[in-house]
Amino acid sequence: MSFTPYNAPLLSGLLGDMEIAAHFSVKADIAAMLKFESMLAKAQVETGLISEDHAKDIAATCDGFEPDMKALQQGSAQDGMAVPEFIQQLRGACDREVAASLHFGSTSQDVVDTSLTMRLVEVNRILQARLTGVTEELASLEKRYGERELMARTRMQAALPVNVADRLQQWHRPIKQHLASFGDIKSNLHVVQLGGPVGTLSKMRDNGPEIRAKLAELLELNDPGEVWHTDRARLNAYCNWLCGLCGCLGKLGQDAALMAQNGIEEISFDDAGSSSAMAHKRNPIKAEMLVTIARFAATLNAGMQHNMIHEQERSGAAWTFEWLIIPQLCVATGASLRNADTLLKSITNIA
Amino acid sequence: MSFTPYNAPLLSGLLGDMEIAAHFSVKADIAAMLKFESMLAKAQVETGLISEDHAKDIAATCDGFEPDMKALQQGSAQDGMAVPEFIQQLRGACDREVAASLHFGSTSQDVVDTSLTMRLVEVNRILQARLTGVTEELASLEKRYGERELMARTRMQAALPVNVADRLQQWHRPIKQHLASFGDIKSNLHVVQLGGPVGTLSKMRDNGPEIRAKLAELLELNDPGEVWHTDRARLNAYCNWLCGLCGCLGKLGQDAALMAQNGIEEISFDDAGSSSAMAHKRNPIKAEMLVTIARFAATLNAGMQHNMIHEQERSGAAWTFEWLIIPQLCVATGASLRNADTLLKSITNIA
Amino acid sequence: MSFTPYNAPLLSGLLGDMEIAAHFSVKADIAAMLKFESMLAKAQVETGLISEDHAKDIAATCDGFEPDMKALQQGSAQDGMAVPEFIQQLRGACDREVAASLHFGSTSQDVVDTSLTMRLVEVNRILQARLTGVTEELASLEKRYGERELMARTRMQAALPVNVADRLQQWHRPIKQHLASFGDIKSNLHVVQLGGPVGTLSKMRDNGPEIRAKLAELLELNDPGEVWHTDRARLNAYCNWLCGLCGCLGKLGQDAALMAQNGIEEISFDDAGSSSAMAHKRNPIKAEMLVTIARFAATLNAGMQHNMIHEQERSGAAWTFEWLIIPQLCVATGASLRNADTLLKSITNIA
Amino acid sequence: MSFTPYNAPLLSGLLGDMEIAAHFSVKADIAAMLKFESMLAKAQVETGLISEDHAKDIAATCDGFEPDMKALQQGSAQDGMAVPEFIQQLRGACDREVAASLHFGSTSQDVVDTSLTMRLVEVNRILQARLTGVTEELASLEKRYGERELMARTRMQAALPVNVADRLQQWHRPIKQHLASFGDIKSNLHVVQLGGPVGTLSKMRDNGPEIRAKLAELLELNDPGEVWHTDRARLNAYCNWLCGLCGCLGKLGQDAALMAQNGIEEISFDDAGSSSAMAHKRNPIKAEMLVTIARFAATLNAGMQHNMIHEQERSGAAWTFEWLIIPQLCVATGASLRNADTLLKSITNIA
Repeated sequence: MSFTPYNAPLLSGLLGDMEIAAHFSVKADIAAMLKFESMLAKAQVETGLISEDHAKDIAATCDGFEPDMKALQQGSAQDGMAVPEFIQQLRGACDREVAASLHFGSTSQDVVDTSLTMRLVEVNRILQARLTGVTEELASLEKRYGERELMARTRMQAALPVNVADRLQQWHRPIKQHLASFGDIKSNLHVVQLGGPVGTLSKMRDNGPEIRAKLAELLELNDPGEVWHTDRARLNAYCNWLCGLCGCLGKLGQDAALMAQNGIEEISFDDAGSSSAMAHKRNPIKAEMLVTIARFAATLNAGMQHNMIHEQERSGAAWTFEWLIIPQLCVATGASLRNADTLLKSITNIA
Repeated sequence: MSFTPYNAPLLSGLLGDMEIAAHFSVKADIAAMLKFESMLAKAQVETGLISEDHAKDIAATCDGFEPDMKALQQGSAQDGMAVPEFIQQLRGACDREVAASLHFGSTSQDVVDTSLTMRLVEVNRILQARLTGVTEELASLEKRYGERELMARTRMQAALPVNVADRLQQWHRPIKQHLASFGDIKSNLHVVQLGGPVGTLSKMRDNGPEIRAKLAELLELNDPGEVWHTDRARLNAYCNWLCGLCGCLGKLGQDAALMAQNGIEEISFDDAGSSSAMAHKRNPIKAEMLVTIARFAATLNAGMQHNMIHEQERSGAAWTFEWLIIPQLCVATGASLRNADTLLKSITNIA
Repeated sequence: MSFTPYNAPLLSGLLGDMEIAAHFSVKADIAAMLKFESMLAKAQVETGLISEDHAKDIAATCDGFEPDMKALQQGSAQDGMAVPEFIQQLRGACDREVAASLHFGSTSQDVVDTSLTMRLVEVNRILQARLTGVTEELASLEKRYGERELMARTRMQAALPVNVADRLQQWHRPIKQHLASFGDIKSNLHVVQLGGPVGTLSKMRDNGPEIRAKLAELLELNDPGEVWHTDRARLNAYCNWLCGLCGCLGKLGQDAALMAQNGIEEISFDDAGSSSAMAHKRNPIKAEMLVTIARFAATLNAGMQHNMIHEQERSGAAWTFEWLIIPQLCVATGASLRNADTLLKSITNIA
Repeated sequence: MSFTPYNAPLLSGLLGDMEIAAHFSVKADIAAMLKFESMLAKAQVETGLISEDHAKDIAATCDGFEPDMKALQQGSAQDGMAVPEFIQQLRGACDREVAASLHFGSTSQDVVDTSLTMRLVEVNRILQARLTGVTEELASLEKRYGERELMARTRMQAALPVNVADRLQQWHRPIKQHLASFGDIKSNLHVVQLGGPVGTLSKMRDNGPEIRAKLAELLELNDPGEVWHTDRARLNAYCNWLCGLCGCLGKLGQDAALMAQNGIEEISFDDAGSSSAMAHKRNPIKAEMLVTIARFAATLNAGMQHNMIHEQERSGAAWTFEWLIIPQLCVATGASLRNADTLLKSITNIA
C-alpha cells in the first residue's frame, strides 16, 4: 500500500487517474492563477479601473512567471493558501505602480475558486468523453447479448426470467441520465468567482458586475451573476453528480461481481485478476473497484454537505475542507469510468 | 430525552413536525395503498386486462377497508414490508374471481414506492409554503435593517464593513435558489411506480406503458416513462435537495448564533431560551437547532448515496434503508423551516 | 412506510424494538430526572449543603410527581430541552424555601446526561442478554454443522474448501470480542454527570467531587471523577461499539444472503419472506435487515464524530444532535440482534 | 489547489505530513513486503516446513531486491494489488526449487496487511511523540495563564466566569485520555497477519499458529492468535482513535477561533495568517485547520464502518476501500497534531 492509491506508483493504475490528476497539479493551478490575474487586469481596463499599460505589464509579468515555490509553500502554511504570497511575489516582479493594479479589488478566494473552475472545465471534458464511451459500450453489449434470457433476481433470490437487455437497461438508463444532466451541471459550475475581500466588489465601484462578466468571457467561463464565496451549492451539485455517477457504476460493478460468482456464472471476462496463492482464481477486480469507488465517493461526498454551514463571509475551515474532497472525487470518478470501460470491454459472455 | 425527538411528546415542538409526520403515519400509508390498488384496477379496465365489474368491486372493497393491523405487523416482520399480507387481506375481502384481478401484474415495490410519492406530494406542499414564508421573512428583514452597517467577517475575523443587506443576501440567495429548483425536483419525484415483479410489466402484455400512464393520471402523479425499481436517482435528488436546504438554513443559524454572542451582539431576538441554572442567559436555541438539523441531514443523507449500490432487480437491503432515511429527512427539513421562520420573526434588531 | 420504522405500527416488528424504545420514552426520562433530583438532594445533605428536611421534602415532591406535559413541551421548544420548565414545575410544587435546595448547584445538562446514562444501563442489560444469546446460537450451529465442507470464497469467487466451522468462526469471533469488550464500555459509560452550569461545580464549594461520588453511589452509577459536559468520548466509544456490533451482524447477514442465493444454496432457513407477486420466492429478509441496519448504523454514527467539535463550555448544537443519534442507534442495535437471533434459529441447513 | 493537499507541493505544509507520508511510500511498502517474505521463510525453517538453505536463499534474494516497477504497476491494475506480480518477480529471482518455498502457504493479504501494520508501528511512534508534545504545551499554558479569569460560554452565550485552567482542562483531559489509551490501541494493532489463501493456514499443517507466533517475533509485532482477514475491528478501533483525536483537536481549534474573534479577543497568537486583500487581517489559520481536519477525519472514518460488511473469506471491495482511508487518516492526524503544536506554541496571551 502506498500513500493515497490515487497517485501512488503502484495502485494508480487501478484507483488513480493521471490524466485527471494533472489538472490538480501545482503547475496547472499556477498557470490558472496567472491567467486569472492577467485577465482580471484586462477586464478592468475597459471600465477604466486600471490603465491599459498596467494591464499589458501585468500580462507580461504573468507570462511564464515562475514563482519561488519554497516561499509559496511556506506562505501556504502560514496563510492557509498560496495566494497572499503568490500575489506578493507577482507584485514584486512588477513596477511598483503596476503592482497596485495587480489583483486590484480582488481577493484570494476569487483566485482560488476561479482557478478551480477553470481546471474543472478540463476535467469535465475528460469525464464527458469517458462517460460517452461507457454508454456506447453498454449499447453494444445490448446489441450482442440483449435478447438472451437471464434470471432476474430480487432480494438476492431468483425471481422470473427476463432478457439480458432488461438487466443492461437498468445499468444504462441512470448512466445515460447522468450524461443528459451533465450539461446543466457544467454550465452552473463553469463560472468565474469575483467578489473582492467580502463579496461586495466594493473597490470596483459600480463596475463590479460588468468586470465579472468581462472576466468570465476572457476566461471562457460563465458569469454567475453573483458572488458565491459562501454559497457552494454549485460545487455541491457537481459533487452530488460525481457521487451519483460513481453510484450508478457501483451498481453495475456489484451486479457484475454477483453474476460472475461460481455457481451463478452469468457473465465472463477476459480480464480477470490472479491470486498469489490460488492459480485457478479469476477475480473480478474491476467490478470490485466500481463498488469500492462508489462507497468511497459516498463517504467523501458527505463532507461537502457539512461544508454548507459556511460561517459569515468566508469560512476558512469549510473552504479548505473542499480541497480535501473535490480533487479526490474527480479522480475517483475518472478511475471509476475507466474501470467500467475496461470491465465492459472485457466481457466475453452474458447469460 | 425521548426516543427520537421527532415524535417525542416533549422535543417534537423543537425538532419534530407533526404536520409532516402525519403523512408518514400508517393511516396515510394504508389510504395511499388502497387508492393505488383501486386506481390500478381502473387503469387496467381501459386496456381490457380486467373487467369493469372487477374494478368496481375492487374499488368497493378498498373503500374504507380496515386491515387487520396485528396481522399486517406480523406480515411486515416476516416479509420485510406489509404488502404481501395486505394484498392477501384485501383479496380475502373480495370474491375469489375478483381477487385475481386485484394487484394484477403489480408487485409490492409498486405499491410501496407509489404510496411514498403520493404522500411526498403532500409533504412538499407544506415545505413549499414554509419555504416561501422564510424567503418573505428574509425580504422583510432586508427592508427593515438592510441599509445598516455590519462588520463582515472572514475566517472568523473582522474584515470590512458591509451592509446588513449583504449578509442577508448570503442567507437569502441560496434559499431562493432552492425554492426555484423545487419545481423540477417535484416533477421528477411525483411519479408513479409500476414495474411488476421484475420491472418488465410482463403480465400486462403490451399495455404496460399505457396502464402506467393512465394510473399516473388517476393518482395525479407524473408518468416517469420507465420503471425505477433499482434506479433511485429521483429519491436521491430529492434528499440532496432537502439536505441542501437544511444546509442553507444551517448557515443562517450558525451566523445568527455568532452574531448573538455577548461581545459581538449584532442581532437580538425576543424568543430566547432560558437556563435551569443561570437566570441571565438568553440562549439562541432556534439558531442552534438550525445547525443541529443541518448536520443531522448531512449525516443521514450520506446513507442514500450508499443505497445506489442496489443489487440486481431489487435490493431488499438498500430499499429498506431508504425508509430509515427519507421520512426523517422530510420531518427534519420541516422542523428546520419552522425553526428558521420562528427565528427570523423573533429578530428585534440587526447590527 | 410509516414515519420512522422504529416505532411504526407496522415495521417496528422488523426494524424496531419496543423493549429498548421503552427506555427512551418520556415516562422513563421523567422518572430518571425525578430520581436524579431526589438523590442529588440526598447526596448534598451529607456535606451540609442542604438540610435533611429539605432533601426529604424534595424526595416527597418527586415521588410520583406528574408534570404538566403541555407546558413541558412548550418549554422544550423554547429552551431547547425540558429541564428549565421541569425544574420550575417541581419547584412550584415545593415550599418556597425547599425550592431553593432543589437542583442546587446543578444544571440542565447534569439532569439530561445522567437521565440518559441511567436508562442506558437498562438498555445495555437487554443488549447483553441478546448478544449472549447470539453467541450461543453460533456455538450451537458450529456444533451441528461445523465439520461439513464449505467452499471458501474470496473476492466473490470460489477459493478452496474449508469447514463450515471456519466460516462460522469468522462470524463468531468478532461478535464474541464485542461481548468481551462490553464490560469496559459499560463501566466507562454508566457514570453520573455533575458539573453545574459551567462544569466547575462552583456552587458546591469544595464538596463537588464528594457529592458527585455520593450521587453516583445513590444512582448505582460510576463516578467518572470529572465533568464530561464537553468531552463526549464515552458516548462516542459506546456508539462506536454499537455500530461495530451492527457491522459484525451485517457481515453475517451479507454472507447468509449470499449463501442463500439460488445456484449457491449453502444455507436454508425455515423463516423466509414471501412476495406479493411471486409465490415461489423465499426471501432472506432477516439477512437483508442485518445489512440494512449495519449501513444505517454506519451512517448515523458518523454524526457522533462531528459532534466532538463541541464549542466552549456547552454546545447546544452538538449536544442536541446526540439525541437524534443515540436512541436510534440503540434501537437499531437491538433490532439487529433480534433479527440475527431469529435468523440463526431459523437455519435448517448449512453447506 | 493541488491534487490532494496532503502531498501537494504547496499545501502539504499546512495539511500534509511528509514524515508520516514517507511510511506509506512504495519504497517503504516494498521494504516491508520483502522483510515479510524473508522472515516468513525463516519462521518456517524452525517447524521444518522449508529448509534452512531455502530460507537463506530467500533472504539473500530479498536483500536489496529491486522490483520491476512498471510490471508491478501493471500487475496492480490487473490483480487489484501488487503482490501476485511481486511474488512472481521474486520467485523469478530465486532458483526454481527455492521459489516454491517463497511465500509458502501465505497469501497476498498476509503480505499487504502485515506490511501495513509494520509501517503503522513507525507512524505511531511519530504520533506518540507529537501527542506527548501537545499535552506538554497544554500543561505549560495552564501554568502560564491558568489562574486568570475567563468568561465561560454555554450555547455560545456568556455564562459565568471560570479560570483559564477550566477551559484548558476541557482541551487537555480528552487529549490526555487519548494518550493513555494509545498503548492498548497499538498493542492490538501492531500484529502480524498470517492466514493463507482462505484464512485457515491449511498448507502449514499443524504448525500454522507456531509459525505465526515466530513470524510476529521476527517482525517485532504481536501475535494476534488468530487470522483477521475479514475481521477488521483492530483497524477500525485505530481509525476511531485517530478520528477521536482529530475531534479533540477540532474542539480546541474551534474554541481558539471563537476566542480570537474581534470583539471577544480572549486569545492572541504570534502566528496568524495574512490576506491578499486586507492588510489588517490576522487569520487564525491553524485553529481553522484543526476544525477542517476534524471534520475530514469524521467524514473519512465513516467509510471504515461500512467496510465491516466484508463478505465471505475476503472482500476485494471492502479491503481496497481501507487503502483509500487509512493512509489519509494517519497523515491528517499527523497534520492536526503539528498544527495544534504550532498553534499552542504561538499563543501570546489568554484572557
